[in-house]
Amino acid sequence: MTYQAGEYDVIVIGAGHAGCEAALAAARMGCSTLLITLSLDTIAYMPCNPSIGGPAKGHVVREIDALGGEMAKNIDKTHIQMRMLNTGKGPAVYALRAQADKFLYQREMKKTLENEPNLELHQNMVERLIVENGQCRGVITRTGARYYSKTVVLTTGTYLRGRIIIGDLSYESGPNNQQPSINLAHHLQELGFQMVRFKTGTPPRINRKSIDTSKMEIQPGDDVPRAFSYETTEFIMDQLPCWLTHTNEKTHQIIQENLHRAPMYSGIIEGTGPRYCPSIEDKIVRFSDKNRHQVFIEPEGRETEEMYVQGLSTSLPEDVQLKVLRTIRGLEKAEMMRTGYAIEYDAIVPTQLWPSLETKLVENLFTAGQINGTSGYEEAAGQGLMAGINAARKVQGKDPIILDRSQAYIGVLIDDLVTKGTGEPYRLLTSRAEYRLLLRHDNADLRLTDLGYQIGLIPEERYRRFVAKREAIEKEIERLRNTKVRPTPEVQAILREMGTSEINNAVELASLIKRPELGYREISLISPPPEPISPEVAEQVEIQLKYEGYIKKALQQVEKMKKMEEKRIPDWVDYSKVAGISSEAREKLEKVRPISLGQASRISGVNPADISILMIHIEQGNKALKKG
Amino acid sequence: MTYQAGEYDVIVIGAGHAGCEAALAAARMGCSTLLITLSLDTIAYMPCNPSIGGPAKGHVVREIDALGGEMAKNIDKTHIQMRMLNTGKGPAVYALRAQADKFLYQREMKKTLENEPNLELHQNMVERLIVENGQCRGVITRTGARYYSKTVVLTTGTYLRGRIIIGDLSYESGPNNQQPSINLAHHLQELGFQMVRFKTGTPPRINRKSIDTSKMEIQPGDDVPRAFSYETTEFIMDQLPCWLTHTNEKTHQIIQENLHRAPMYSGIIEGTGPRYCPSIEDKIVRFSDKNRHQVFIEPEGRETEEMYVQGLSTSLPEDVQLKVLRTIRGLEKAEMMRTGYAIEYDAIVPTQLWPSLETKLVENLFTAGQINGTSGYEEAAGQGLMAGINAARKVQGKDPIILDRSQAYIGVLIDDLVTKGTGEPYRLLTSRAEYRLLLRHDNADLRLTDLGYQIGLIPEERYRRFVAKREAIEKEIERLRNTKVRPTPEVQAILREMGTSEINNAVELASLIKRPELGYREISLISPPPEPISPEVAEQVEIQLKYEGYIKKALQQVEKMKKMEEKRIPDWVDYSKVAGISSEAREKLEKVRPISLGQASRISGVNPADISILMIHIEQGNKALKKG
Repeated sequence: MTYQAGEYDVIVIGAGHAGCEAALAAARMGCSTLLITLSLDTIAYMPCNPSIGGPAKGHVVREIDALGGEMAKNIDKTHIQMRMLNTGKGPAVYALRAQADKFLYQREMKKTLENEPNLELHQNMVERLIVENGQCRGVITRTGARYYSKTVVLTTGTYLRGRIIIGDLSYESGPNNQQPSINLAHHLQELGFQMVRFKTGTPPRINRKSIDTSKMEIQPGDDVPRAFSYETTEFIMDQLPCWLTHTNEKTHQIIQENLHRAPMYSGIIEGTGPRYCPSIEDKIVRFSDKNRHQVFIEPEGRETEEMYVQGLSTSLPEDVQLKVLRTIRGLEKAEMMRTGYAIEYDAIVPTQLWPSLETKLVENLFTAGQINGTSGYEEAAGQGLMAGINAARKVQGKDPIILDRSQAYIGVLIDDLVTKGTGEPYRLLTSRAEYRLLLRHDNADLRLTDLGYQIGLIPEERYRRFVAKREAIEKEIERLRNTKVRPTPEVQAILREMGTSEINNAVELASLIKRPELGYREISLISPPPEPISPEVAEQVEIQLKYEGYIKKALQQVEKMKKMEEKRIPDWVDYSKVAGISSEAREKLEKVRPISLGQASRISGVNPADISILMIHIEQGNKALKKG
Repeated sequence: MTYQAGEYDVIVIGAGHAGCEAALAAARMGCSTLLITLSLDTIAYMPCNPSIGGPAKGHVVREIDALGGEMAKNIDKTHIQMRMLNTGKGPAVYALRAQADKFLYQREMKKTLENEPNLELHQNMVERLIVENGQCRGVITRTGARYYSKTVVLTTGTYLRGRIIIGDLSYESGPNNQQPSINLAHHLQELGFQMVRFKTGTPPRINRKSIDTSKMEIQPGDDVPRAFSYETTEFIMDQLPCWLTHTNEKTHQIIQENLHRAPMYSGIIEGTGPRYCPSIEDKIVRFSDKNRHQVFIEPEGRETEEMYVQGLSTSLPEDVQLKVLRTIRGLEKAEMMRTGYAIEYDAIVPTQLWPSLETKLVENLFTAGQINGTSGYEEAAGQGLMAGINAARKVQGKDPIILDRSQAYIGVLIDDLVTKGTGEPYRLLTSRAEYRLLLRHDNADLRLTDLGYQIGLIPEERYRRFVAKREAIEKEIERLRNTKVRPTPEVQAILREMGTSEINNAVELASLIKRPELGYREISLISPPPEPISPEVAEQVEIQLKYEGYIKKALQQVEKMKKMEEKRIPDWVDYSKVAGISSEAREKLEKVRPISLGQASRISGVNPADISILMIHIEQGNKALKKG
């Protein structure tokens, strides 16, 4: 027996990293929003690594912030350590990484959700969607509640037909023994969704008091205050260290001897695992020439002795896990508080999605996060934000927001998913972004805050601050372009001191800053700005001028790409009637139904020749329609 | 396939309020201890009311502290509000009650466990006990780990064959959708334990932002700093209020109309519920003449908007719950974050236990908390502490510690359980304690700290402080007994001012303090102590002298009772051979196997005549043995 429980603009199912962003975005855009989660005690839970950020992922967190999302703010308030990675390399690969206090992270996010005006929270299990005439109209819970809505965002994480596997033991379960979502998984199949089976895993947890950190290498946080959010002004200066140790030949020997008991090799695991986050047994097999692997020991929070063993993800039997742990330097007496496990779950084939993250099969239904075949909290949050935005815009009768590949890592992520699909849990990497010089960690606000404001997620006050910053950057760049410095004795002295050659003629500051030995700080010594410049502005001025040449080239490529992206594929195109394209291309195009020639060109199996034919087909058709 | 995972002195299963105390006590007594829990994220979880203490329960918390347990310290560090109840009445019924920050309470307890030297924590599901020749030798987990130990303490809470019920929905589950423990429940039955089916329940939770507290009565905490632990010196002064509202006729009407859908009345619930913590539907039926019931709105923590709706525990269908909530003043627009539910679970019949909480059926196996048929966090913790102490003492070859009914509420609780059994979830009440004037909130330290020290749970330093306090009390009482005050004009003036009659002759201070108008403060004005007296000492001096007569009488009764308790029933007694006792008495005595005539006399169905016959039987038998 069911009963009508309420009516909303947007319903979000699941309160993990995707669901939280989706619900907050929709509510902040003025939609009455309901967030239903299996447990209010595991909101924004980190079942795996207690950390956020790193290469590409950290960029996504910055983008989420620039668009008005929550992840950056939340980790800024609850981390135990911040580190800027890759500082030895160029600014395009700088990446911030935070160790989270996972308990505080959850509590803080829950509080934010609870206090959001248009948002209601409810603990329940959704078992079915209400679908009428191919349109999603709401959801039905285990307790028989029918909630109606204009759009629904599904963020089911690893819960759909979740199954935990440890050695030869396997049982239905969500992450960390949470209840799995079985009926909804079957229901999605009934609706006609093509599902895949993926798996991911997690390492054991150990007690700090049982290990010897004096045998490990300390990994402190940065001394410089850092934050993910452009809005953060209070920094947590009290940071906890992590620790580095390594596997060794004894570790590898034990794993080798027990490979026949590893569910990955014994055949118990059906799902495909994440290539870039392999289990330790997988690493031993795939990189058999390596005689050691890194193992990081990371606190799970400030007020706990529980430590995460990064690098030792495994589904080996428990007895083997314990033996493996205790071969490692510093862990000889480790108390294993939690056993590592693999978890298998259902995901949908993401080529069934429009770039808005709405499903092609069921209108008004959006999906985000692991259900779309990704791995990672940041990838989930980025999709969640976009799904929430587009679910809200659909309610408001507005066109979806689609980030392009030159605009954001989130754009790359979603385009990859819906265009190419994925055969394994997809992880974002800097190498996936062809315009990575444009998609830097430092300039996410310049790339996306205008859009965030336009969407309605960036408040007026914040936007004013952003515009002022942008103007300051432009003004200072302008000054550096228009200011020449002459070879006076004072200037030459400064240049010599900085280990760079003297100048012969008057030189523009904008040209001088390009020298490797010089940065904005040095230039400002030679020629101070009329008013003081904030470090953020200085950083932008320096990067934009220093890399001007590369950036220009990248922008030219973007222009070319944009032309292809602007060539929309009209609804009337019927691929079965496009003569001359290969049958593989025809099949893939029918499946993906790309919205532009750009997207079509990125589908694997669709060749430039197919694109040319398609382009001509569309032009002819459009002409015929005009005449018609 | 199983493997040997480790060997310990004591293994505790379950990390709720009973398990935490048991594990800490055993570890602190020097036993190598393993605590296995289904989830490290729900240690010391409060699935129901976020509060600790109140009448009788608060007394237990003080007793736990006096014996060296943890609950008092933990709530002192993590409460949001403290109130002393019943201050209008006599000191015997004073009772401290705290509202907990349930998240901080968990985190703090977990941290304490993690840092305890002899204690290891492990997340797993225990599925079987290792029992050989009637003795428990360890446990086997779902992952196939065999852990050996000398004793085992089982604290399974509501997890054994747990089943959640909401309206006509019912499914296997632990509290708040945690995984239930099914195999262990079956295993206990296989071992021959007689099991009963109990149920308990919890109300909906609501979002603070959706309610109107201006329509309710505010319930602030006390201004006076209060603590449960005798050791607490830092007090949390920033307190949050609760709120009081009421059900009304509309509420009752909706419940009446939907009674046929209440699982309690439709027959879905098999288990017996707690009489003193009834569901709202039960209250409406049982107290049909009342036109309103109290409903307290209690924050679940400092950093959450989630509020507990005390008084509205229910397993009515979700749609009815929502309607019921919204009839209540201030809750007209309540956002129901969690649905109320009933939960059924297996418990063992507690007459299968010795007063040490060791089971009669399986040696070295102890049980504590809801598995013994009780309800309440405090009742669980009190038993957990005693089970942990006795499990450790068994390992160390020492006699068990058995608190008697004149010594502690914990003694009353355990004696009631193992002697009378219970037909419903047992709750401790002040009325259950015949010596309640002796078992006061204020004197738990005087009653039990000697014992805690002797057991090894009270450290030297703390014990010294306690002894000094006791000496100060005795010294001051002595002074008051030996100091006479003469009817000088100054004294008469003070007495008049305090509204009490003047004295005619010299009077002992110890006699003057018995006047209702006077307390220690006034007496100390008339005759100040030679050295300053702490408020705790002053309180004891006042109570002990004011209630001297009553206390003496109670102590005389205790003496009589003690004589009966000291008459141990020897092992050779075979009730089938005791001629002349009633068949009901014979049956009950065989089942309970009391250790003393005192315990035998409290078994319902065993009459004074049966006791007399049994006493003679024992005396004759003892004589015969001596001669023999």
